[in-house]
This record gives sequence, structure tokens and C-alpha cells, in this order.
Amino acid sequence: MTETAEMKNTLRESSSSTAERAFLFGRGDRTMKVIETIAEMRQVRKQLEGPVGFVATMGYFHEGHLSLVRKARADNPSVVVSIFVNPAQFGPHEDFNTYPRDLPRDLALLEKERVDVVFAPPVEEMYPPGFNSWVDIEGVTERLEGASRPGHFRGVATVVNKLFNIIQPDISYFGQKDAQQALVIRKMVRELNMGIEIVTLPTVREPDGLATSSRNAYLKPEDRKAAPILHRALSLAQELWGKGEKDAEKIRQQMRELILKEPLAKIDYVSIADPETLEEMEEVKTPALVSLAVKIGKTRLIDNVVVG
Amino acid sequence: MTETAEMKNTLRESSSSTAERAFLFGRGDRTMKVIETIAEMRQVRKQLEGPVGFVATMGYFHEGHLSLVRKARADNPSVVVSIFVNPAQFGPHEDFNTYPRDLPRDLALLEKERVDVVFAPPVEEMYPPGFNSWVDIEGVTERLEGASRPGHFRGVATVVNKLFNIIQPDISYFGQKDAQQALVIRKMVRELNMGIEIVTLPTVREPDGLATSSRNAYLKPEDRKAAPILHRALSLAQELWGKGEKDAEKIRQQMRELILKEPLAKIDYVSIADPETLEEMEEVKTPALVSLAVKIGKTRLIDNVVVG
Repeated sequence: MTETAEMKNTLRESSSSTAERAFLFGRGDRTMKVIETIAEMRQVRKQLEGPVGFVATMGYFHEGHLSLVRKARADNPSVVVSIFVNPAQFGPHEDFNTYPRDLPRDLALLEKERVDVVFAPPVEEMYPPGFNSWVDIEGVTERLEGASRPGHFRGVATVVNKLFNIIQPDISYFGQKDAQQALVIRKMVRELNMGIEIVTLPTVREPDGLATSSRNAYLKPEDRKAAPILHRALSLAQELWGKGEKDAEKIRQQMRELILKEPLAKIDYVSIADPETLEEMEEVKTPALVSLAVKIGKTRLIDNVVVG
Repeated sequence: MTETAEMKNTLRESSSSTAERAFLFGRGDRTMKVIETIAEMRQVRKQLEGPVGFVATMGYFHEGHLSLVRKARADNPSVVVSIFVNPAQFGPHEDFNTYPRDLPRDLALLEKERVDVVFAPPVEEMYPPGFNSWVDIEGVTERLEGASRPGHFRGVATVVNKLFNIIQPDISYFGQKDAQQALVIRKMVRELNMGIEIVTLPTVREPDGLATSSRNAYLKPEDRKAAPILHRALSLAQELWGKGEKDAEKIRQQMRELILKEPLAKIDYVSIADPETLEEMEEVKTPALVSLAVKIGKTRLIDNVVVG
């Protein structure tokens, strides 16, 4: 059975009937609904007790995702999680096809976190033939990830806009690791008057400082050993700033020099920018968003800290 | 007193207190709320009995607007009308500043139609400093009005998206006169999963066939006499099609020849297109959207009919 066929089969089983799902997940009193269509999601939404907390994900969960889910669970009577690897946010030469997927494991993890509803639509449900409606957040998307990945934030803003319209959450949780994404979503919600509260939660890290990421699955053993260089560079920036260095370019330069010592690392960008406008700073004023994108072997990783 | 100051004053008076409004509009039992802020609109929305019918307008009402309001009133327990001359949908050399406005008259007309809530925000409320979030419906906006007025539909889609998010109607009414606009809104609602029903109502015409439009106010007496040429050209298209003509270019050509006989008329476009894709037809297949944009003197007018 191919991975896709297996996934579909799992989805079918887990959405087949309440009794079966309860059996599958070993839960007699309460079942997690797994929904594949927008129409059913709308129906189920009407039954949910508010406030509804929502976490939008591309699946392949790590502790970063789970920290968002746990916060949503702690704060809301109802929790919806979406799992959708969004083709619109991947460039033509990026990793949409190989992006890691493991729906059965993801569903089991969400069940443990006592999530109420999982929305896991197929691509055609979200992007039917002829689809051509886009949400463009301009300005802040021209820098950093937006500059390196043209069209990425159009894809992100559009799918999150759609998910918000379908799920109608009161509050939605995003990770600080994708700092620019959180900024874009906040701006979209505020400027398009979506009336949803956006909460950003801290980046979850491995013991050696590497930020958790689904793409860490790509790292070969030698890459994995090299990958904490991103966090070390961020820590260096904090340390330099703590010692009184206010020249942003000097800090960037020392970060670059540190990273270049790692033979497997290739810098995409190193940035010290205003956390709202993302404009690069000359003099470090707080708060400052220190962020970077570095390729480790063939895997592009990002990370950031806020200084001040 | 400037026109703007007068408008503001009227707004202030009419939103000052329930008793005053009841007095102003000669209505003891029931008052129309006039709201200027998004925050208050959200609060009031929560109190409205659903379904909520909504009509988005730029004011300066004519019978076309009122036909939408009456349908909304007939079909829904609650009716909201917005009055907002949306700068984002005007090009830099278009008529935003001179677009006709008459808020006191508009409010009196809406009161007569027993509208529940008027949302009339100032420009800064809808577009605060730094605003840069846009809804782009691509494909269908590249033709006809979109081709003649670059950026127009970005402005329309964005403001309607915002208004829908603020007012959260169940059903919203648009006029067939702006056929491409109705198409764009339908596509936006469907593809961004906004969950709102869009109803399009027939164009209202003067006895001589001229479609009602706020921009008709610009027409000088000699322009006004020439303006029914748009409707006569559309009627000619219907007649030719009725007689069996299936060659779209022959029909367009005869329409153009008829319009060119009117010295005050200058053609922008004459189109016979698929009503969904707006692709120009070679052979007329039904339904076909016959539409045109013609300048009469200095005033650009549009009109259309659906054939078949």
C-alpha cells in the first residue's frame, strides 16, 4: 500500500463512525471527529461550544505543534486542529512532494491531547479547479522568508484565511519559530477585520538548542550534529547585545563568521530587524527580531530570537 | 459649512441618541442605527436577529440601490446597509474626490425602507495607516472593467471582504449592472469559503433604458440625451441574436457602428463573453454576457444584458 493510500484508508476508518473511532482511539466516552470536507466541518462547527481554539498545521507533529495544541486545550472548551500540507505555500522547486507526512501518528497524538475536531481536507477540497482567489499581505512579506521564498506568504495567508472562514475560531495559536508568519497572520486578521485573537507561543527546542521543526526529519546524522549552529548564532547575538554591542551589522557579521565555521552550513540570510516592520536595523533598538535561514546540507532551516 | 463637515454633523446628529434619531426620522417605535466604527458595528451585530441581509453601497442612492434594500428587507428579519465611498477601488486619475455624496438624503431613504443598521465608517476606520492587506481575485479580473481600471477589483474585493467580516451577513445583494463585480464577489466568497449567499438582482432602468447609476449625476443635459445609446446597443445585440446571428464579432461590430453614430459617445469596450470566465466568444453560445463601457462626454458608463 502506498503512503497516500494508507493515509486515505486511515482517514476513512477514523471518520467512519463514532463507535469505530471510539474503539480505534480506545476512548469510550468522548470521540475525536476527523473531518475531510468543508461542508461537514461547517456543520460540526455549529455544535461546538465556544470559545473555539484552533491550531493550523501541516502535520508531522513535533513538540512545537503539541505545545500549541496543549495551550488551545487548556484555554478553550473546544479545540480544532487542521492538518493540511498546503501546496500554495511551496515554491515550484521546493519540497511539497517530499514534505514529511504521518497522518496515523498525528491523529493518535491529537487524540491523546483530547482534541475535539481534526480537519484534514484533501488538496482538491481546498483548491478546486479554477481556484484563483488570493490574500496578499504586502510590505512585511517582501523581506526575509518572503524574499527567499517568493509567493510563500501568499500561500500561507490564503490558506489560513480559508481555514479561519471555515472553522471560525475565536482564538488561534501560532509558533514563534515562524515569526514572520505570525506577523503576517496578525496583520491579515487585523486589517481584514477577521475578529480572531492570535496567540504566539515560544519556540520549542531540542536539548542542544535546535528548534523543533518537521523539516528536521530531513537531516542526515551529520546534518543533525551541525544544525544547532543556528541556535548558537542566535545565542551569540543575544550575548553580544547583552555586553552592550548596539551596532547591528557587527552582530550580524559575528553571527555569519560563526556559522561559516560549520562546513555543512550555507547562509541564506542573517537579520536583525524591527519585529513589526521587519526593516533591518543599523543600531539595535529593542525589541529586535534576530532571525536567520541556513541550509544544513540540503535542508533549509530557520530560527529566531527576540532581543530586549 | 463644507460638504464633509455637513456630512459629519449629520452623522453625529443621527447617531447621537435613540430618542433624537427617532425624532429626526419621525419614527417613534423603531430606530435605525447609524454606526461609524467597526467595534460598535460588531457589538450591534451580536444583537441582530438572523438571517441578516446586507447591501454594500457607496451611497448616493438611486432606484437600483433601493431595489436591493427592498429585497433584503423583504427576505430577512435584519437588514444592514453600508455606505462607504471606497478609495481603494478608484484609480489615481479616477473620480474618488468628486464621486457624488449625499448622506442626509441617503439616510432618510434607508429609514423609509425600514433598514435596521447603517454602517458608514470614515476612510481611516477602514484603511488605517500602514494598511497593506489585499484580496486579489485573479483571472476574471483581467478582462473588461479590470482591464480598463487596473486595481479596481482588488479594491472592490478587499473592501467587500472586510465588510463581510465586520457585518457577518447571511446573505448579500448585488446589482446585475455591475456584472463583473458580482462575479468577482461570488468567486471570492466561494473560493475563500466565506459562507455567505450572494444574490444578484436585475438592473433598474430609466424609462428610456438608461441604467440607474450614481454617476448619471455627472451627465450634462446633452449627455443625458445621448446616454441611452448604451442600452440601445445592448438591445440591438439581443435583437440580432434573436434573429439568428451567432457570429459574436458581427454583433459587436454592429453595436460599435450604432454607438459611433452618437457624437458624444466614445467606446471603451464592447464585449460578448462567457458569463463565468469572461472570455470573449467567437460564436455566441448562451448564456452570453453582452457588456460595454462607453464615455458620454466626460462620464464613463457601463451596462450589460445576458442573452439566452
